[in-house]
Amino acid sequence: MKLNDITRRAASWLSDSGPKHDVVISSRVRLARNLLGMPFPGRCTEDQRRNICHTVTEAIKKSGICDDQITLNMADYSRLDRELLVERHLISRQYAQDEHTRSVIVSGDEKLSLMINEEDHLRIQLLYSGLRLKQAFEEINNIDDSLARHLDYAFTPEYGYLTACPTNVGTGLRVSVMLHLPGLKLSGEIERAMRASRDMKLAIRGIYGEGTEALGDFYQISNQLTLGKTEEQIVNDFTNMFIPAILDYERKARQQLIEKNRLEIEDRMFRALAVTKSSKLMSSDETLDRLSMIRLGINLNCINDINLDTVNELYLLSRPAHIQKLHNAELAPRERDEVRSNMLRDRLAENRKTGKKNP
Amino acid sequence: MKLNDITRRAASWLSDSGPKHDVVISSRVRLARNLLGMPFPGRCTEDQRRNICHTVTEAIKKSGICDDQITLNMADYSRLDRELLVERHLISRQYAQDEHTRSVIVSGDEKLSLMINEEDHLRIQLLYSGLRLKQAFEEINNIDDSLARHLDYAFTPEYGYLTACPTNVGTGLRVSVMLHLPGLKLSGEIERAMRASRDMKLAIRGIYGEGTEALGDFYQISNQLTLGKTEEQIVNDFTNMFIPAILDYERKARQQLIEKNRLEIEDRMFRALAVTKSSKLMSSDETLDRLSMIRLGINLNCINDINLDTVNELYLLSRPAHIQKLHNAELAPRERDEVRSNMLRDRLAENRKTGKKNP
Repeated sequence: MKLNDITRRAASWLSDSGPKHDVVISSRVRLARNLLGMPFPGRCTEDQRRNICHTVTEAIKKSGICDDQITLNMADYSRLDRELLVERHLISRQYAQDEHTRSVIVSGDEKLSLMINEEDHLRIQLLYSGLRLKQAFEEINNIDDSLARHLDYAFTPEYGYLTACPTNVGTGLRVSVMLHLPGLKLSGEIERAMRASRDMKLAIRGIYGEGTEALGDFYQISNQLTLGKTEEQIVNDFTNMFIPAILDYERKARQQLIEKNRLEIEDRMFRALAVTKSSKLMSSDETLDRLSMIRLGINLNCINDINLDTVNELYLLSRPAHIQKLHNAELAPRERDEVRSNMLRDRLAENRKTGKKNP
Repeated sequence: MKLNDITRRAASWLSDSGPKHDVVISSRVRLARNLLGMPFPGRCTEDQRRNICHTVTEAIKKSGICDDQITLNMADYSRLDRELLVERHLISRQYAQDEHTRSVIVSGDEKLSLMINEEDHLRIQLLYSGLRLKQAFEEINNIDDSLARHLDYAFTPEYGYLTACPTNVGTGLRVSVMLHLPGLKLSGEIERAMRASRDMKLAIRGIYGEGTEALGDFYQISNQLTLGKTEEQIVNDFTNMFIPAILDYERKARQQLIEKNRLEIEDRMFRALAVTKSSKLMSSDETLDRLSMIRLGINLNCINDINLDTVNELYLLSRPAHIQKLHNAELAPRERDEVRSNMLRDRLAENRKTGKKNP
């Protein structure tokens, strides 16, 4: 399998519709692991980094955790290819921009990715559609166990897993969900929800992690601390407490909007759909905003002739690197806006033709 | 014929497409006339105003200038009905809001309207689609001559026709054209064009005359002075000099836009059409802006499946009083926005179904 194979379709965590998918786009669990007796990547020599890549890659092969895999040696890939992986949430932006020896191993369905020599020696990530943190947590535990048979992790009974950044020390686990919160945004309650989340020690970020804006009403919510809590506690708190609370809040906001301001809200949805189907130039940020309204329209049963999967797919395919990969060329922003508009029009027209309906 | 008969269709000056209709919507000539030995309406008693109404109405009947006519005694009509007549350019806004005895006589095709007891005893207006000032001027001259046989006008050899406002003294003629200038607006050259027009002693106003904004890129251009120029000079200057210059300027601006910024301009046109076909709430001002872009799209052959007549018609039918008359009820602004959206969607869908094409 090659990188190009994954460019032209949606990642499974986006194209499958998991539980609570009206609000929860995806669930992500990530483990930070480091090898015993090696400096953290930031302090490694290139030789050491090569060693780590080799050791971890071999361990992954032996462990059999990932059959249909693709190993991407970052040095072999262009800036655009790496940006594509960022857009698909397979690697972090920092990792893409780094210049040190590093490689990432991705499963064919893109649910699993293993970054070698990011901030830690190994970052294991599992990404699922919908709210499936428990399932993801169980699976990543198995993966972690399998790898541990072939790798010596840096671990102390007192602190747990040692990591480059103190916030990851302990379980090394980060749990996050990507939420679509247009209801809270439109009703003006998003700020209050974000303050409440911060009070619960949750980190809230935009769609592409730290420092990115909440484009298209997407919010990524994750745990801030891993020390002093068991992994099960973290996952349970998320699954049983935090997320249901926000989910409920968002669904109520949507219901209120449709009951009290149906016309205003329908107006926005139908305009968003019409414009996305008709524009000749559309920026990626505008696209996310328009898709957000279309997605809301589908979830509120106002828009019935567009498939939710199509919209989810377009979130990804409309991003700048994807647009350029689809077009097989580096493009200036205005050219991207043109190619993007054409793509959006085609895909939304196709969606109609196939007559796919929402389930 | 009754007022209601004219509500549901476009005025002929809008639905016919006259010469140079890509830029010139309509041509208007107006004569201000007063009766000898009577104070101007602003200084009349109600008795005198009634006398004037009677005298002028009788003269119109005897003159035979208008067969299929409708006489509207303003006092019999509601605020909404009067507003409708303003939107159709049959009476002035001041005249609609006035409370004195007054009546207007309108021809069945709405080309001719005769306002009694506006600022002057009699205002005769002829309205044609496209650039047809000469034809309109010849016709209004004939009308004026016919009426003069039955009315004694206030006239002095030194000043010409006497009028309530000194700017009308002389010929009493005002010549104006309504221009659609989206090219100059989009290219940012409209201010320069307006300054140039003012230098030529032309008055530039919005779509509904003095003090109204240039909604939908419509501009009404008229002569400012009537004293010291013959009527023929005024009409000739307009037809042979002023209007061709602006027309040329606007057409060049459009051509430049389409040559240098085709995508940007198409983007705006197609978005405007898509939004107009899909909105659930649309204000009358937004409607004019959207229709302006659609009209430009049709004239530049970018939009081929919408009929120009339909768009012209919608300019009128989407105005607040028309919306309420169509709906047979007084409506609050938000209700109007809803009815307007539905009407726009229906009419644009109908236009497609009938398969009417632009000539």
